[in-house]
Amino acid sequence: MKKSLLSLAVLAAVAAPAAFAQSSVTIYGKIDLGLVLDSGNAAGKSLRLSSGETGGSRLGFKGLEDLGGGYKAGFQLETGFCADSAAGVSTPVKNSAGTTIGTTTAPNFCTGSNAFMGRQAHGDLSGSFGALVAGRQFSLGFAALTQIDPFGSGYAGQAENIVDVSGTRLNNSVHYTTPSIYGFTASGEVAFGETIGNWQASRETGAQVAWASGPAYVAFTTYDLDNANGIGSSRKNYQIGGTYDFGVIKVHGLVQKSDGSPTGAKKVDVLDLMGGVTVPLFGGSLLASYVHHNDRTAASVSGNTGDEDASQYGIGYSYPLSKRTAIYTAYARVHDDKNSFGKAAAFTVGNATETGTGDKAFNLGVVHNF
Amino acid sequence: MKKSLLSLAVLAAVAAPAAFAQSSVTIYGKIDLGLVLDSGNAAGKSLRLSSGETGGSRLGFKGLEDLGGGYKAGFQLETGFCADSAAGVSTPVKNSAGTTIGTTTAPNFCTGSNAFMGRQAHGDLSGSFGALVAGRQFSLGFAALTQIDPFGSGYAGQAENIVDVSGTRLNNSVHYTTPSIYGFTASGEVAFGETIGNWQASRETGAQVAWASGPAYVAFTTYDLDNANGIGSSRKNYQIGGTYDFGVIKVHGLVQKSDGSPTGAKKVDVLDLMGGVTVPLFGGSLLASYVHHNDRTAASVSGNTGDEDASQYGIGYSYPLSKRTAIYTAYARVHDDKNSFGKAAAFTVGNATETGTGDKAFNLGVVHNF
Amino acid sequence: MKKSLLSLAVLAAVAAPAAFAQSSVTIYGKIDLGLVLDSGNAAGKSLRLSSGETGGSRLGFKGLEDLGGGYKAGFQLETGFCADSAAGVSTPVKNSAGTTIGTTTAPNFCTGSNAFMGRQAHGDLSGSFGALVAGRQFSLGFAALTQIDPFGSGYAGQAENIVDVSGTRLNNSVHYTTPSIYGFTASGEVAFGETIGNWQASRETGAQVAWASGPAYVAFTTYDLDNANGIGSSRKNYQIGGTYDFGVIKVHGLVQKSDGSPTGAKKVDVLDLMGGVTVPLFGGSLLASYVHHNDRTAASVSGNTGDEDASQYGIGYSYPLSKRTAIYTAYARVHDDKNSFGKAAAFTVGNATETGTGDKAFNLGVVHNF
Repeated sequence: MKKSLLSLAVLAAVAAPAAFAQSSVTIYGKIDLGLVLDSGNAAGKSLRLSSGETGGSRLGFKGLEDLGGGYKAGFQLETGFCADSAAGVSTPVKNSAGTTIGTTTAPNFCTGSNAFMGRQAHGDLSGSFGALVAGRQFSLGFAALTQIDPFGSGYAGQAENIVDVSGTRLNNSVHYTTPSIYGFTASGEVAFGETIGNWQASRETGAQVAWASGPAYVAFTTYDLDNANGIGSSRKNYQIGGTYDFGVIKVHGLVQKSDGSPTGAKKVDVLDLMGGVTVPLFGGSLLASYVHHNDRTAASVSGNTGDEDASQYGIGYSYPLSKRTAIYTAYARVHDDKNSFGKAAAFTVGNATETGTGDKAFNLGVVHNF
Repeated sequence: MKKSLLSLAVLAAVAAPAAFAQSSVTIYGKIDLGLVLDSGNAAGKSLRLSSGETGGSRLGFKGLEDLGGGYKAGFQLETGFCADSAAGVSTPVKNSAGTTIGTTTAPNFCTGSNAFMGRQAHGDLSGSFGALVAGRQFSLGFAALTQIDPFGSGYAGQAENIVDVSGTRLNNSVHYTTPSIYGFTASGEVAFGETIGNWQASRETGAQVAWASGPAYVAFTTYDLDNANGIGSSRKNYQIGGTYDFGVIKVHGLVQKSDGSPTGAKKVDVLDLMGGVTVPLFGGSLLASYVHHNDRTAASVSGNTGDEDASQYGIGYSYPLSKRTAIYTAYARVHDDKNSFGKAAAFTVGNATETGTGDKAFNLGVVHNF
Repeated sequence: MKKSLLSLAVLAAVAAPAAFAQSSVTIYGKIDLGLVLDSGNAAGKSLRLSSGETGGSRLGFKGLEDLGGGYKAGFQLETGFCADSAAGVSTPVKNSAGTTIGTTTAPNFCTGSNAFMGRQAHGDLSGSFGALVAGRQFSLGFAALTQIDPFGSGYAGQAENIVDVSGTRLNNSVHYTTPSIYGFTASGEVAFGETIGNWQASRETGAQVAWASGPAYVAFTTYDLDNANGIGSSRKNYQIGGTYDFGVIKVHGLVQKSDGSPTGAKKVDVLDLMGGVTVPLFGGSLLASYVHHNDRTAASVSGNTGDEDASQYGIGYSYPLSKRTAIYTAYARVHDDKNSFGKAAAFTVGNATETGTGDKAFNLGVVHNF
């Protein structure tokens, strides 16, 4: 910032805009608007217009600069927005003791932890050494889950409804990926906890080995999230999954185990399984999956009611109106072995933007990419 | 979202940006900065720099894709911003009983219900069948009012200062407009209330027939906003108005009746009348209107002090410095038959961004469209 | 806003985008991501990924229109964003008496008073008369400080860590600068306090004379911030500084005196001195400065512990990887004569985005301009 800010202000008024000529920024985004009909909630059905069923509505800015010698610098900024409503998001108010004393509303960005540029904001350096990405970015585990899930972490049928997903995106993170060698890539990530005096507290570290070749994709991913006090693991996750495209059908499979001690007291222990297919049909794609969440946690662990198994089946169809625009529909249903529905702890059928209000949901909408 | 997010992240660093080549996004906006001098408030005069007197300062993104066969898909995202100040907006804090216990501040977007992309956010499909628009968008009634008001819902003289405007923009709405046939178009709108278990609660439905031909424009619009419990009408509105451009003068007229029972108890009953002119003068446009608000509501209805009539005259002048930039001035005064000024319930003279602080306001500013 | 909003909505779906063809908007920005290691805080060290050490990460939109006759209209909108994290910013909640009763979180923009477009938002008119800029913009004093500080108001070494900076940016302000005559420019600024019934309350006025010629730059700047009640000066500031580029070394010097009576009771009296150099080295730039803050305020003035002198030395190095991308490192240390570190009132070593947590900080990062 050594240039004169005053000069810049005056330049904005006086100089030719050529001084600011741009060659580097690409604007992109998605607007996904559809109807959702939830049922299975004791309070009744819910009919809504939603802002992102297959994926959250978003606006992004990205760019890439050639540094020479095969090196490149780039960036990506992506904000969510609410395509359906200007209603604010309810935000808790806490007193100095940390007790919730009320609520207020804040501007709503619908996805990305309700932050401006909260979906992705990172700077990138790449070259023959691989790629180094720093900032806020998707975790290795979530990125793999999205690729393995036939619903791509969207629609009513998304595996996330019942699969344990501890970290969709990582704040304050640095990510390294090797170049692809015979289809293999290896990646590592670290997300700083940023606690004064304790480097390990709330820190996440993860690693992945992936192989992509022709019709096949396989990824093994693991991460470890340290406790808030930095001694012990709040959540450890091991995930293996892949897809194989036979042409007439693409099959998808996932096994994920996660455990940990969020409060340092008892151990969460969960096994998730998913199987699914993508079938080209009438010019579009039929999507289907079955997901099982086997909760082997003892009762009364914080954030987990204990031994609460669930299973979900989902089916959907997407038909492209063009290269950038598609019409879609989906239906999914969760069966929760323990909780009758309407209880707070029950699993709900959501979509890429919402968590949903019932154990059954129907989607119908249009998604437009730009 | 079936593409690999991980791959995308790496692509951002590694691949050529050609993969994200854009052909579809247009950036547009408005920055309107001017002085406002309010008077008539018991606490004194107010001199301010304001962010949008003729129209709210805004930044927008829009695009259109040809789907073939005459069909098109498009989108429009428009956010307000404060061109004058980074001061936050005061936001109430409520306890669990719904009682206000304090205030906090949230980022301010100045217009659009103080939401990011809160001015407009919608996806569009159009073709020989007409146009279907879903998301957050202007209501039919407000859009017609803006076209009929010589001040275009801005300046000190805007009819909105005293005319009953129940819904400028509609959340969670779907809007359909027929193709124009001999200048006639018909439109319908529905905005979902999104209450679980009650589809009708807070739902708004509206319809419009409009005719535009050469110098003439006429629109009849009506809407009905259901009560929060879904039984009965919170507000019913009938609006008819139009403009005729004689060349040397354009005349504007509006009649609007609105009634309803916001609390289910008593009936609001209001008749609004507006007459105005636009006169080409010295290369610019002279704008003037007289508005009368005839409140026939019995006293003590919630949100209405009862029988509070008001009238307003406004005059303004806009002079184009170029096709995109204009200098403007305006003055308006409200006479409130019942309330001496300074009382909370009194009508104030505002502008496109602010509600104002007095019963008289003077505007002087520059608006630049980009 | 006289055009039909309804028509616009339909146009978005129906018409060719040519109607909105843009020639005027330039997108620009900065993403600065680096590691910070703070030490000297009693609670321990802090290791963080930060969103803007040399300058805050930002996204901007600007444009310029030729009005003919040498006149131009333009605008600049610049928002901060958090490149590192989607964590919200803690925001106080106050009751009706103004007492803080708790906290909540709001979306975080990291710089620019945490407002959308809070870094800069202004409209500009320029011509042979000079340049007139209205809106939210940098103060004359801060703009000069940034130009004179070898660290350009960024890095660990920024003079701002201990120099009195009362107003980085001004809300509701109008700024005029003359054309440059023999290298001289004169500027004036006023920022309205916008208090009803008191035009002078919290109003800021400032003036500057600057001279730039070849290797030399000198600026004398002064401002006066009126008290909240409008009687007396909350802060008066006199600043003189400059730079001279000898080629093999560029020297920087600043003297600043500020006084005032924020509460109307006692007088703040501070003298700040800075000397620094920029040295071209190994293809990059070595930056260094020494800053002394001589606090001559009597004890117990609000916001000042009294006679709290401090000094800081800072050193940094920036190496360009390209015209738009650089790698940088910096280190700075503050010595606070009165306060042992860890006390609330102590000076900390921050950077362009953060205030820091200790009296020593190390920076290492990459900044990419787009």
